[in-house]
Amino acid sequence: MNDASLSSDQGAAGPLIPVLAIVGVGLIGGSFAAALRRAGQAGRVLGAGRNAQSLARALELGLIDEAVSLEEAAARADLVLLATPVGGLADALSRMLPHLGAGTVLTDAGSTKAEVVAAARAALGGRIGQFVPGHPIAGAARTGPEAADADLYRERTVVLTPLPENGPAALDLTRRAWQACGADVIDMDADAHDRVLASVSHLPHLLSAVYMEQVALAADAPTRLGLAGSGFRDFTRIAAGSPEMWRDIFLSNRDAMLAELADVRAVLDRAERAIAEGDGAALLTLLDTAAQARRNWRKE
Amino acid sequence: MNDASLSSDQGAAGPLIPVLAIVGVGLIGGSFAAALRRAGQAGRVLGAGRNAQSLARALELGLIDEAVSLEEAAARADLVLLATPVGGLADALSRMLPHLGAGTVLTDAGSTKAEVVAAARAALGGRIGQFVPGHPIAGAARTGPEAADADLYRERTVVLTPLPENGPAALDLTRRAWQACGADVIDMDADAHDRVLASVSHLPHLLSAVYMEQVALAADAPTRLGLAGSGFRDFTRIAAGSPEMWRDIFLSNRDAMLAELADVRAVLDRAERAIAEGDGAALLTLLDTAAQARRNWRKE
Repeated sequence: MNDASLSSDQGAAGPLIPVLAIVGVGLIGGSFAAALRRAGQAGRVLGAGRNAQSLARALELGLIDEAVSLEEAAARADLVLLATPVGGLADALSRMLPHLGAGTVLTDAGSTKAEVVAAARAALGGRIGQFVPGHPIAGAARTGPEAADADLYRERTVVLTPLPENGPAALDLTRRAWQACGADVIDMDADAHDRVLASVSHLPHLLSAVYMEQVALAADAPTRLGLAGSGFRDFTRIAAGSPEMWRDIFLSNRDAMLAELADVRAVLDRAERAIAEGDGAALLTLLDTAAQARRNWRKE
Repeated sequence: MNDASLSSDQGAAGPLIPVLAIVGVGLIGGSFAAALRRAGQAGRVLGAGRNAQSLARALELGLIDEAVSLEEAAARADLVLLATPVGGLADALSRMLPHLGAGTVLTDAGSTKAEVVAAARAALGGRIGQFVPGHPIAGAARTGPEAADADLYRERTVVLTPLPENGPAALDLTRRAWQACGADVIDMDADAHDRVLASVSHLPHLLSAVYMEQVALAADAPTRLGLAGSGFRDFTRIAAGSPEMWRDIFLSNRDAMLAELADVRAVLDRAERAIAEGDGAALLTLLDTAAQARRNWRKE
């Protein structure tokens, strides 16, 4: 990649990303590759990662053109998306560093950003400017390369949390790549991102799992589960998510999680007191605020 | 109604319920009427209740044949379904008592049973045997007579919590009426019902509303709500429910709610401690139990 390709007219002068590399060819990485390829903005697509079976399947499915080592991906690609679990990022970056092309841009898809940024700084040192932290807010119940979907990011938000060291070319390439997938790209501070995601994504998963565990441990769990209906179904759907992934996210976003949880506990205390004291007015106010807020949220 | 009609072959000897009365012709009451009428088991359908607009609409829609007073419903009907808010039940029963036919069976659709039974006992005194407490576990997002649906109860569970005073004829009529709506009818003790429903229905609503209120009160609520995705959508759907209805349910089922909430708090404490201490193993165990339990729940 050179600067001319960034400023040139897409398509007329070839794809935005002549060589794209995906580290971790599952739902997130595979969908990024599929979307960019369909948009005509990815030339050759390299796949890397620890899961040989996923790489083989991604090749079969045509999501990637070649399975390569991390080192080769680092050397050859114009843009590398690291779509690995948050816990494996530092190791991958350390292995890529000695081979990293001078113009190669690295970006990630991790659900938390402050810890990712710290790990990337530690791993990349003076090359940190080549790493643009990102988080596509999209997902699906399915996983693996078979779940890859060129439409996964369409009309979804991708948050970038740019670093002071990121140059305009690296930022621009990352932004344009996600836009080519159909996403809206916004910039946020990493800490603000983590607090917001703790609130609207991670905490619901924790509460849903905690609740589900309590039901499952009850002596009469089969009776309970037999009488559970559609409210239960919706409320607990996210409790079925990958335990390993959510463990990593919760631990990675610990401080924000604990802060948000304290705030939720304060409201829960208030609700419990209202029920215990038979304070219908306080309960109605709380329920009404919640119902209005939910009804005004137009994303169904 | 007489005993002969109960033991006769349905259809051949006329409908199971020659005169049906519905008190509260909204989603629940209207659907009961529609289902019984479609099954050919309701002769004439009377509607009563405080909402004149709903009664007029139910007449227009053909859900009921006549709008009558509570007193007239009590005098004329073979079976009366009280589909009013839990809080209004005692008053309705007191008004009906002086006019109550000797063979009239009363049943209700309230979400909690222990308090309903106590209120019914106080209101009906020696006639309590004519009241068969029930709870159809079905619902929909829509309300009012327009939402009435003859299929609402199909393959859903209806819990009856029979009283020692209920005679076999009253129980049988109530059971057969719900079965004619396509429901599975089971019997439970009222306290067990309330504890189970607190667990799988009422507590999810409380937790969802508490969480939603906390998000809505955050200083950066618009940013949060803008980045909320499908997990948030599912988790908070029930927070949009009727504040008045849920206030009544929570207060009516206070003891069971507080007991279940204490159990959920114990699991929440454990999860919070694991996050605070970075105890990935404890967190994984908890998340895995929840995910397995949810995946094994086959009601999607």
